[in-house]
Amino acid sequence: MKHPLYSVAAILVLASLIALSSFGQPIVSKLDSSYMELSKRMLAHGLQRCEAYDMLEELTSIAGARLSGSPGSLVAIDLARQMMERRGFDKVHLEPVIVPHWVRGPVEEAMIVKTSNRLAIPLSVCALGGSIATPVDGIEAEVIEVKSFDELKKIGATAHGRIIFFNRPFDRTKLETFEAYGGAVDQRSTGAIEAAKVGGVAVLVRSMTLALDDVPHTGAMNYVDSVKQIPAAAVSSLDANILSDLLKREKNVKVRMKLTCQTLPDAPSSNVVGELIGTEKPNEIIVVGGHLDSWDKGTGAHDDGAGCVQAIEVLNILKKLGIKPKRTIRAVMFMNEENGQRGAKAYPVAPQREGEVHIAAMESDRGGFAPRGISVHGDSTLLQKVLRWKSLFEQLYAGRIVSGGSGVDVTPLVEKGAAGFGLIVENHRYFDYHHSDNDTIDKVNPRELEMGAIVEALLCYLISEEGL
Amino acid sequence: MKHPLYSVAAILVLASLIALSSFGQPIVSKLDSSYMELSKRMLAHGLQRCEAYDMLEELTSIAGARLSGSPGSLVAIDLARQMMERRGFDKVHLEPVIVPHWVRGPVEEAMIVKTSNRLAIPLSVCALGGSIATPVDGIEAEVIEVKSFDELKKIGATAHGRIIFFNRPFDRTKLETFEAYGGAVDQRSTGAIEAAKVGGVAVLVRSMTLALDDVPHTGAMNYVDSVKQIPAAAVSSLDANILSDLLKREKNVKVRMKLTCQTLPDAPSSNVVGELIGTEKPNEIIVVGGHLDSWDKGTGAHDDGAGCVQAIEVLNILKKLGIKPKRTIRAVMFMNEENGQRGAKAYPVAPQREGEVHIAAMESDRGGFAPRGISVHGDSTLLQKVLRWKSLFEQLYAGRIVSGGSGVDVTPLVEKGAAGFGLIVENHRYFDYHHSDNDTIDKVNPRELEMGAIVEALLCYLISEEGL
Repeated sequence: MKHPLYSVAAILVLASLIALSSFGQPIVSKLDSSYMELSKRMLAHGLQRCEAYDMLEELTSIAGARLSGSPGSLVAIDLARQMMERRGFDKVHLEPVIVPHWVRGPVEEAMIVKTSNRLAIPLSVCALGGSIATPVDGIEAEVIEVKSFDELKKIGATAHGRIIFFNRPFDRTKLETFEAYGGAVDQRSTGAIEAAKVGGVAVLVRSMTLALDDVPHTGAMNYVDSVKQIPAAAVSSLDANILSDLLKREKNVKVRMKLTCQTLPDAPSSNVVGELIGTEKPNEIIVVGGHLDSWDKGTGAHDDGAGCVQAIEVLNILKKLGIKPKRTIRAVMFMNEENGQRGAKAYPVAPQREGEVHIAAMESDRGGFAPRGISVHGDSTLLQKVLRWKSLFEQLYAGRIVSGGSGVDVTPLVEKGAAGFGLIVENHRYFDYHHSDNDTIDKVNPRELEMGAIVEALLCYLISEEGL
Repeated sequence: MKHPLYSVAAILVLASLIALSSFGQPIVSKLDSSYMELSKRMLAHGLQRCEAYDMLEELTSIAGARLSGSPGSLVAIDLARQMMERRGFDKVHLEPVIVPHWVRGPVEEAMIVKTSNRLAIPLSVCALGGSIATPVDGIEAEVIEVKSFDELKKIGATAHGRIIFFNRPFDRTKLETFEAYGGAVDQRSTGAIEAAKVGGVAVLVRSMTLALDDVPHTGAMNYVDSVKQIPAAAVSSLDANILSDLLKREKNVKVRMKLTCQTLPDAPSSNVVGELIGTEKPNEIIVVGGHLDSWDKGTGAHDDGAGCVQAIEVLNILKKLGIKPKRTIRAVMFMNEENGQRGAKAYPVAPQREGEVHIAAMESDRGGFAPRGISVHGDSTLLQKVLRWKSLFEQLYAGRIVSGGSGVDVTPLVEKGAAGFGLIVENHRYFDYHHSDNDTIDKVNPRELEMGAIVEALLCYLISEEGL
């Protein structure tokens, strides 16, 4: 029996379902409730053991700092392989890649040498990654402070023969610290080029940090063939303030600086790859990754030891819980993110890729802090698909699912058609540690680190089961 | 001219508006967009200065630890008053309250004295707050370990003459650390009562922490008149593990412990109150608070220096931005949350309350970490009202608006009809520091602390303008 009122009711129900789903509020299905159950198991298992932290302790204490080409990087490659083999993943292998090899050298120092009261003031500095050395006796020159490239261009000839001091701080009013970083990092990455164009003899760059302390932060800087190479160093935020204050009060302030860094010939290295082979579609790959290299300051605990051990832990959680994914879930530890991205470029075109289809690639490279959500690197259809799972991630306090970038290492995969994902974490503290001696394991909380792995494990598994 | 199709369209629009609002997705009105604009101003102003952190530095360095009745607590009262007067709040005053006065005393020590290899092993311990002292020469007795009161009852007479060692750890699988704390804290709060009932002579309690380290965590313990008082101390998590391991291997393990703590006569103290008087409804009060007392370990930076300076910063942000609230917004620093809640009990019945109506009371007492949302202490109607503002808080990454508790200090106001609110923060690290020497300002990030104040400022202002 059919009654007209039932039809009206049906239409209303249908309309409300459409309204709901169009606002990312999924109807909780039987399937969803089984995912909810699974996510609770992942949570309990992960938090009970916090095994990612044990791995991070191993990586940071045994390999330590691990800039591409360094002895530490080779130890790290072997360790990462061992960590995955010990956990019995289906396949673990290295994929060779040739990387740049820059070394800091034994001496890096700077000092304010000419002031009215004749005091010499030492500055906390470190060479920027990729910088050439100063001449053996160092460089001594008057310092000129600028806040932007525009300002530098306006100064023009006055900059000739000077050390250019880039001192534009992070915009502290940004809620997103990555946005503040993005607004300042041009000084570090291309400051030496712009300074050389106007005749500068060296560059001092205010450290890329929100902290006010005595620790210099390194990071990549670049040269171009058409412009003379000049040495470049970062100065701690505290000393940047001291130097800036002095420049306001005195004329002809001089700094002497000496760097012994150099670029050696390219060196052999590897990406490290481990996986759980999919039971139904083994050739469809979901990559979860981080970068294994770090800068040569601190021990790269947050950047990006965290992302590497989380990737291993994703597979480990699934395996320990006896979960067999339909598609292959693969942990990739990319080499050389910091100063060349050679690993990221090599992976998609390696001979092993023959016959593989990468449907998704996720990276954690924003520190091992408590996760907040997932950044979706793809079109709005992809975002809508992931939003279906929002309530699952909200249970893990990681329900912020937004359009955005994925990660430097997985972007080449995204460009080849994979759906890209980046783990969004609480990031107020990140740049206090980033690329500096501060980036050590005592700044990492075992539970926060593990939660990142749990969120990644859930996303990888959902994609493995549901596709995209 | 009216066309039937327009009516259908109008109904559809109306229907979808209803559907939206019923799922807490507010229609963005002109009003909402002006609140959004204001929230951005609060964010930029707050993050630029991070003034809450400056206040916390002042409080923790000048007053330091500030248990009720202690000299530090009196310094803190004066400091809090000064901080608000210096910022030009409309009214600042103290409200007297008599508080308990327990002191730790110069000696607190414990040692495993009888083992098969005759080694004496010192244990990291501290008296629990409120404990009596041991006899002058200390207590030496065999130790018996239990994980629960049930287990203790089963042991029964065997416990007689023993030191009872409560060693049930936090349930690490809980995502909410407060839940893990709630599941273990009975051992600390009433362990001495239960132990004395079965003839125990003293109590050692595993520290209430998720960290594995050598730092004991104090906290309130209780006696009842009908049961003999016995001394109680916390032992570090590392030493709890050592003691437990030894008890598994050896018989007749003895511990000697000595505590010199005592309870002195009640002492005069104060709540500290400052406010911005409402322009339209000055007698309708919105309280934002924290507790000014701390334990006598560390300097109470997170617990609850953070909540106090945030409350001051709420008013400070509003005042600096020239915002004049319709209703009175009042910062209250309650005294004696930790061991008596005398300030919380005194405030609602103080003579100053004459003619005042408290419409809302908010507390931050879960650490000065990045805010995640707001816990709403009230009925579902209240929750729905606050959910209207969800999108505003999501912009501050604090969009988790859920039903729950407010805070120990504001609960008496909630019981008298005020809407209650608690600031929800990222809390994985909290119990690593809580009630211990670890609770110092170096564990607080200036931006995370400030974000809490910004979220509170926005909520207070919304309530002030919109009512509840």
